[in-house]
Amino acid sequence: MTTTIYDQGLDRNPANFQPLTPLSFLERAATVFPDHVAVIHGSLRRSYRDLYARARRLASALARHGIGRGDTVAVMLANTPAMIECHYGVPMSGAVLNTLNTRLDPAILAFCLDHGEAKVLITDREFARVMAPALQQAKVTPLVIDYDDPEYAGEGQRLGTIDYEDFLASGDPDHAWAMPGDEWDAISLNYTSGTTGDPKGVVYHHRGAALLAVGNVVTGTLGKHPVYLWTLPMFHCNGWCFPWTLSVVAGTHVCLRQVRAKAMYDAIADHGVTHLCGAPIVMSLLINASDAERRPLPHRVAFFTAAAPPPEAVLAGMAEAGFDVTHLYGLTETYGPAVVNEWHADWDALTKPEQAARKARQGVRYPPLEALDVLDPETMRPVPADGETLGEVMFRGNVVMRGYLKNPKSTQAAFAGGWFHSGDLGVKHPDGYIQLKDRSKDIIISGGENISSIEVEEALFKHPAVAAAAVVAKPDEKWGETPCAFVELKASEMVSAEELIAWCRQSLAGYKVPKHVVFTELPKTSTGKIQKFVLREMAKAI
Amino acid sequence: MTTTIYDQGLDRNPANFQPLTPLSFLERAATVFPDHVAVIHGSLRRSYRDLYARARRLASALARHGIGRGDTVAVMLANTPAMIECHYGVPMSGAVLNTLNTRLDPAILAFCLDHGEAKVLITDREFARVMAPALQQAKVTPLVIDYDDPEYAGEGQRLGTIDYEDFLASGDPDHAWAMPGDEWDAISLNYTSGTTGDPKGVVYHHRGAALLAVGNVVTGTLGKHPVYLWTLPMFHCNGWCFPWTLSVVAGTHVCLRQVRAKAMYDAIADHGVTHLCGAPIVMSLLINASDAERRPLPHRVAFFTAAAPPPEAVLAGMAEAGFDVTHLYGLTETYGPAVVNEWHADWDALTKPEQAARKARQGVRYPPLEALDVLDPETMRPVPADGETLGEVMFRGNVVMRGYLKNPKSTQAAFAGGWFHSGDLGVKHPDGYIQLKDRSKDIIISGGENISSIEVEEALFKHPAVAAAAVVAKPDEKWGETPCAFVELKASEMVSAEELIAWCRQSLAGYKVPKHVVFTELPKTSTGKIQKFVLREMAKAI
Repeated sequence: MTTTIYDQGLDRNPANFQPLTPLSFLERAATVFPDHVAVIHGSLRRSYRDLYARARRLASALARHGIGRGDTVAVMLANTPAMIECHYGVPMSGAVLNTLNTRLDPAILAFCLDHGEAKVLITDREFARVMAPALQQAKVTPLVIDYDDPEYAGEGQRLGTIDYEDFLASGDPDHAWAMPGDEWDAISLNYTSGTTGDPKGVVYHHRGAALLAVGNVVTGTLGKHPVYLWTLPMFHCNGWCFPWTLSVVAGTHVCLRQVRAKAMYDAIADHGVTHLCGAPIVMSLLINASDAERRPLPHRVAFFTAAAPPPEAVLAGMAEAGFDVTHLYGLTETYGPAVVNEWHADWDALTKPEQAARKARQGVRYPPLEALDVLDPETMRPVPADGETLGEVMFRGNVVMRGYLKNPKSTQAAFAGGWFHSGDLGVKHPDGYIQLKDRSKDIIISGGENISSIEVEEALFKHPAVAAAAVVAKPDEKWGETPCAFVELKASEMVSAEELIAWCRQSLAGYKVPKHVVFTELPKTSTGKIQKFVLREMAKAI
Repeated sequence: MTTTIYDQGLDRNPANFQPLTPLSFLERAATVFPDHVAVIHGSLRRSYRDLYARARRLASALARHGIGRGDTVAVMLANTPAMIECHYGVPMSGAVLNTLNTRLDPAILAFCLDHGEAKVLITDREFARVMAPALQQAKVTPLVIDYDDPEYAGEGQRLGTIDYEDFLASGDPDHAWAMPGDEWDAISLNYTSGTTGDPKGVVYHHRGAALLAVGNVVTGTLGKHPVYLWTLPMFHCNGWCFPWTLSVVAGTHVCLRQVRAKAMYDAIADHGVTHLCGAPIVMSLLINASDAERRPLPHRVAFFTAAAPPPEAVLAGMAEAGFDVTHLYGLTETYGPAVVNEWHADWDALTKPEQAARKARQGVRYPPLEALDVLDPETMRPVPADGETLGEVMFRGNVVMRGYLKNPKSTQAAFAGGWFHSGDLGVKHPDGYIQLKDRSKDIIISGGENISSIEVEEALFKHPAVAAAAVVAKPDEKWGETPCAFVELKASEMVSAEELIAWCRQSLAGYKVPKHVVFTELPKTSTGKIQKFVLREMAKAI
């Protein structure tokens, strides 16, 4: 590279370069809007001044216990004020925040504690039942800090010797926390739920967390002082980075220990909630709420959903209930949402089914993501934008993880060819919007033809008696594989396997129609994902 | 530094690291909203697809002429579509965009061309009168490309051999432009008007431009598809980075060659303008417009102003006219606005004079700026936040320039002690908001333009009758400030104020010419320094 006049005497220095980090967002919010309410939890109201002081106390107390750069602090917390404080206080000490999935079983929790080499565990009393055996099984012996949430009245003993509030009280509210030495430093560790094999530890850095946090502001058109309801678990991809996003715009966190319809409507009405995120199940709760659970909304509310495309009936129900739904997509490896279904104003003129079809697409790259494409994983060439040719969805950019902790083999495989391989199969429409068709391991290959399990599931969903459906490959001597459907029916609905097969035949090509239909409750992971590997075993056994 | 588990096997790679740059914003807007109107100019409507294609054509044509990384491309352009294209096409070729101030005189323009080592000059026909002598005086011989704006019907010949449209036509609309190799690479060069001596070349990098561009979205609460009126010159701090900001939110640029009241009201009414920026003079034009010039606004319009605190009467007039004014502050060295008067909702309850007093404060750091403070430049300690103790306003962070081109001495002085020294004097209020109390003594800000008092003094000195001269700012309702000259004549020499003003007009741009000339003995300190603060008081009293 030739040296130019711009390469001389214009270097980085402390005045013109700072590491990107979401931590400085809180410092700014606390300086500019110290009295604005940062956290609501039950009857608790905490200002930005207090939130910042508590985060600094936490960082200070951790530092006094010898915690510093690159140490892992695990937390087993619901969507409580402590969880928000940990998103700032832990990295302010230089440590890495590992939010444990509160629905996991002791064995996997013990694995996570050991693999992440947790030095500290902050755990909510409610989860003592699983954390006690997890700590017994784990080889590490972290400092255990108990969080006793006044809003939690249920069972559960304390596991450690230090109370969270006492721990904070021992810290300095004016603690001079340090910016990360490098924006590439780890800020958090998120274990994937691992449908097969051990969970993998996804490492986020300060740079990506800061960029995605601001990306949420841009994508979600968050104005100043939004009021955000915590229905999405913060342990999941750091709550899509929203714990940091809120500080950018000095918003108010409304905590919620348990996602219930009445509690959500109450929070929205009482606190003027403007935004919330959640899986499809949250939308179901909202639109299926009884009159007794409902409250009138103070204004239209923005709802960001991911995990599965919102069906037409759900979109209609949400719109009627006063929610504007935006469809996002991403993975733990992409800091949560890195793809957005950017809505075009002229799509409002389409029919409702056409609108639902548009909304079902995952969409386009988030502003801070450099590139999103559907590639042939063999050739690494983009598939044609024809809405039909299947390829693997791949990501590239600053909001892609650093890699999997202590797992160079999986890291290298994930980044082969200069792209992050999502493992999701999809198509690219002529307008560049991508749409998922299946997980690569969930695809069914019958007589050499690829069958998207999602497409078959959608056909089943449209039958009025079907509550849930999952389709997997069943080994077949003649065809290699055939689609096998597992179906949950709605209460008091009845339909036969033959009727469902005939139903599918009306809308699907013959080779895509399930050869077998099994009525059963679908096995799910702790995060609510259907465990297709269990179903595949069941299908084999038929 | 101890190596931790997070320091192993989690390195940067093409899948998880990209250089920050505003250039990818345009690629995204053109991909997601290709048909959205990006540029309006007279009867011209240009989509994002077209804007992106034209920027790529420009980058391609420049590359074909051997222009690449670290080459300077100077432009002498009004707020026209070409100016927007240059903000993308020039850096897409790896080159550095040097936007020349269209109000400068030939000698300074020649200096800029030479100092920046311009390889290419793109110049609007309107400015041929000053660019022709500038090119004659300059040592460099850039490739000259003429831009002949169809909206310009005035005088001015072509200076080069290539027409801008022909140049673009020679480029490839699908040109595979490269991301900057490093986000620290220079994206633009902006010459300060030079308070003492020669102008200094402020160098911006891709990282800072991207961060400030997104910072504008957050600070300005820009939703999707804003309509932005170009009243702020794009040659000034790259239009506060708004040429790049608009692509983040797929907004519409409404171009304007000349800032006139009727044209502004027409644009707002005809195109539904939502946002604009400008110096106090623009606000004066808007509120002093005649009924014939005015049109009803389609909605309330956001107006961002800087350079001087908006007086109460102006704020009242703007509010009545339908504009919501936000007060920003920054310098060329901070990419334009890096400080914002963040308004608190409860200040709406204050009296109008109290509100004006709050609004007059410059405020707090922009979200992407790490730190803003008022320091004692001797001790580098913050002044007490008492609203009274004077110190120097200093900046630190990613939206501070790389430094001054080929000027290591000034660069080091500007960054002494790890802060950028603004040269502006101010106080810090108890709530942390800063307020300027005195511009660095010799700067006069007239109509948003910095005027070096020394430059005007030098012009006066050259008159044979002048013994001594000092020029200070005189407050002016229309222009904010105007230069006021205090002159000592040589013994037995006589000259009138009118003659001296005419004399200055021969060598200075019109806005730099003193509006008042006072003949008096100059007040001096014991060491012989002129006491400009005394003169400022005298100027006020005139």
